[in-house]
Amino acid sequence: MSKPGIPQGTRDFSPAEVRKRQYLFNTLRSIFENYGFQPLETPAMENLVTLTGKYGEEGDRLIFKILNNGLHEKKDADKEKLNAEWNKMLEKPYTSPVITERALRYDLTIPFARYVVMNQNDIAFPFRRYQMQPVWRADRPQKGRYREFWQCDADVVGSTSLINEAELLCIYQSAFYKLKVPVIIKINSRKILAGIAEYCGASDRVADIAGAIDKYDKIYWHGVEQELISKNFSKSQIQLIRKLIDFKMNISELNGTITNPLSEFEKDFTEKNILIGLQGIREIRETLKYHDNLQSSKWSQQQIEIDFKLARGLNYYTGVIVEVVCNHPQVKIGSIGGGGRYDDLTGLFGLKNLSGVGVSFGIDRIYDVMEELSLFPQNLATGASVMIVNFGGDNETYALKVLQQIRNEGIAAEIYPDAAKFDKQMKYANKRGFTYVLLLGDEEREKNMVSIKNFTTGEQKMVSLHEATSIIK
Amino acid sequence: MSKPGIPQGTRDFSPAEVRKRQYLFNTLRSIFENYGFQPLETPAMENLVTLTGKYGEEGDRLIFKILNNGLHEKKDADKEKLNAEWNKMLEKPYTSPVITERALRYDLTIPFARYVVMNQNDIAFPFRRYQMQPVWRADRPQKGRYREFWQCDADVVGSTSLINEAELLCIYQSAFYKLKVPVIIKINSRKILAGIAEYCGASDRVADIAGAIDKYDKIYWHGVEQELISKNFSKSQIQLIRKLIDFKMNISELNGTITNPLSEFEKDFTEKNILIGLQGIREIRETLKYHDNLQSSKWSQQQIEIDFKLARGLNYYTGVIVEVVCNHPQVKIGSIGGGGRYDDLTGLFGLKNLSGVGVSFGIDRIYDVMEELSLFPQNLATGASVMIVNFGGDNETYALKVLQQIRNEGIAAEIYPDAAKFDKQMKYANKRGFTYVLLLGDEEREKNMVSIKNFTTGEQKMVSLHEATSIIK
Repeated sequence: MSKPGIPQGTRDFSPAEVRKRQYLFNTLRSIFENYGFQPLETPAMENLVTLTGKYGEEGDRLIFKILNNGLHEKKDADKEKLNAEWNKMLEKPYTSPVITERALRYDLTIPFARYVVMNQNDIAFPFRRYQMQPVWRADRPQKGRYREFWQCDADVVGSTSLINEAELLCIYQSAFYKLKVPVIIKINSRKILAGIAEYCGASDRVADIAGAIDKYDKIYWHGVEQELISKNFSKSQIQLIRKLIDFKMNISELNGTITNPLSEFEKDFTEKNILIGLQGIREIRETLKYHDNLQSSKWSQQQIEIDFKLARGLNYYTGVIVEVVCNHPQVKIGSIGGGGRYDDLTGLFGLKNLSGVGVSFGIDRIYDVMEELSLFPQNLATGASVMIVNFGGDNETYALKVLQQIRNEGIAAEIYPDAAKFDKQMKYANKRGFTYVLLLGDEEREKNMVSIKNFTTGEQKMVSLHEATSIIK
Repeated sequence: MSKPGIPQGTRDFSPAEVRKRQYLFNTLRSIFENYGFQPLETPAMENLVTLTGKYGEEGDRLIFKILNNGLHEKKDADKEKLNAEWNKMLEKPYTSPVITERALRYDLTIPFARYVVMNQNDIAFPFRRYQMQPVWRADRPQKGRYREFWQCDADVVGSTSLINEAELLCIYQSAFYKLKVPVIIKINSRKILAGIAEYCGASDRVADIAGAIDKYDKIYWHGVEQELISKNFSKSQIQLIRKLIDFKMNISELNGTITNPLSEFEKDFTEKNILIGLQGIREIRETLKYHDNLQSSKWSQQQIEIDFKLARGLNYYTGVIVEVVCNHPQVKIGSIGGGGRYDDLTGLFGLKNLSGVGVSFGIDRIYDVMEELSLFPQNLATGASVMIVNFGGDNETYALKVLQQIRNEGIAAEIYPDAAKFDKQMKYANKRGFTYVLLLGDEEREKNMVSIKNFTTGEQKMVSLHEATSIIK
């Protein structure tokens, strides 16, 4: 028999890990609820047709497809069809519905859009929903990147008001404030990026420009320039991009983290009458104004910063975009959250003109950051706080009665189920990390008392059950 | 564009449904924790080799297999192999690891056994874990049967003490007590069933006998008899089975629900010196004795009943078995929970002699029962309890400040994000089911007050923000 294992890129979560993850999920849940967002859950499996074509070619490749069941039970005529389809699938990137018609959820956004379209008549718009569920991607696993990982999204659809953008900034701030994670929340607008593209005469190439400057932090201006050259941008175009971006970045960096070089851009865009760029600037200004009225002084460690380099990978964003990075010298990790405004997500499924805006929390990375900075509460780890030692016979009977009385007090408790050797029971108690053990021998039973031992200090005393529960609580 | 849908047998959970499910999960979680059980979570995907052969032929057929990615990128030589394997898969029930090497979790028991074996050196035994996660089966969907459904299991491995059985009975009772669901918890022992088989000279055919009598409630004695005949049991064997089972059932039925015909069986087994049967009887007696010391008088609506017809489908049980049915005239539904003792589950993965016992909660069915009997708390449904009407301009600015102050009081609140027409905003508020709306116009802003409207009574008054929050709370 070979040793059992689990698929590459997946994880078991031990009791201590589940408890920490629960803490993280519950903290986020309480904030979403406080902001009037409503929970939604969708199935792990979606029809493959719902997912394909939504995440680009690379995305299609990384979707986990589920094999249709009962293939060998088909009739011979159907098997011919199956064989033909199979051959096509071996030849090219293609998935046949007779071989695979279902797939695992790749993100929470597309299922949300699908849900909204299917339930549009029952939903009260604007619809604010949050969703915290696993997604699956056949990416090459590496440190911090899994094939099964959790997403946590909050979106509002059916409202174009920038109050929504401002509220989502507040959700980020109050969530990371509660979790004690210091962050920088970067903000930009796709419309400003579109303005830059128009400024240098390449309106149709926003994605290329955005894709290149987004990498500035990793490859610096030299690298960005090389990428733009490789994508056939002209020297003069590259100079204009540099003039705008490089200059504005320097201003931002020189003045510290919270600067506002919007006016500089406004001048450039006004000069050339670039309306989309001007609109982007207005939207950022208005979002920040709303945010000013909503924000709390407690959140000062959760900074907001305009960053024109920010582009965000997925192409469906059309307005304000945001990204969260951890702001702690000890933590070297990429983005731990992001989101933005998308103007026509549900259009993919036939429901036009429904604007939406949302943010996402990178649960797994936030977990890693909190581990690294020891931000999880100490008391989450053990669970049950009391173990009763099992001395067998009449003492066991007495122990069971005591056990149930303790539990009725709301104290998590267990008895060692076998009347095993004392050492063995103590070894177990030690490994589990109980705070207290109760020793109920002949004397305790006859006196209707309990001996309580503090496992940390080693101190032991005989007290009434009532007193013991007070000590434990 | 075709209308979007979801795969047959899967479900979206709306906000109201998620909240109710959360209530159910949290109630069970709090009981498991109170009894010292620890949470575990395993990945949705397992290696297919971990799952195949564990659930019988039918089970293998119903496992959802995941297609390996990148098939068309393989080299030609590998594609020949792929084709050969594909042809085998079309011919017979066979799955090739070059085509599918991963599959969706089919239950929580096998992943638990796999986890215990993989982590045996780190686990403190006896290991008590609970797990609440979805599982997937390619069963034909029908009312109350889904292809994605939730299991909720609590198991103890590494202890043969019958205290564990007794504690699991208490967990059932206190869980259904908390959920207000009246139930009957049926208990039997596989060893008694083995004793019956031995009694009628068919020791090797326990499964056939158990399978037949398990259906007594649906097909009565006549049906059971037919099934036994069809399985080639002799007349005299069938008479002996009837003598034991039918007679004991009648005793049990005549005397009401909590009867104990154990002594009758004991006489029969003693006469013929059937040791396994006698051991089964001793184990039930001891379990119930332990249970007597643990149980609470509050649980009287959650009855325990010995039922010799009870067999439980899966073959890995070896000792005490239990099953829970709803005990309410209005509810016609099958079992809503079950479990038992298994002696060598981890042996499947090479770890021998680790006895375990566990129970399972049928989440989806329990949910349905609670809906039918209206047992969910009323206040779970809406979420946010206050909406602020948006009058735009300066009033909007004032509203944002009020909004954040209310949220800081721990009250879930939202503002209608657009300064839309009053009627539109009221329509939204009505559909969402808010208890209160706040109206903040010129007068309220100038006086630094709020008008609060009770949506149920229609009553409206202008008060201070402090007073409004008291009213809402």
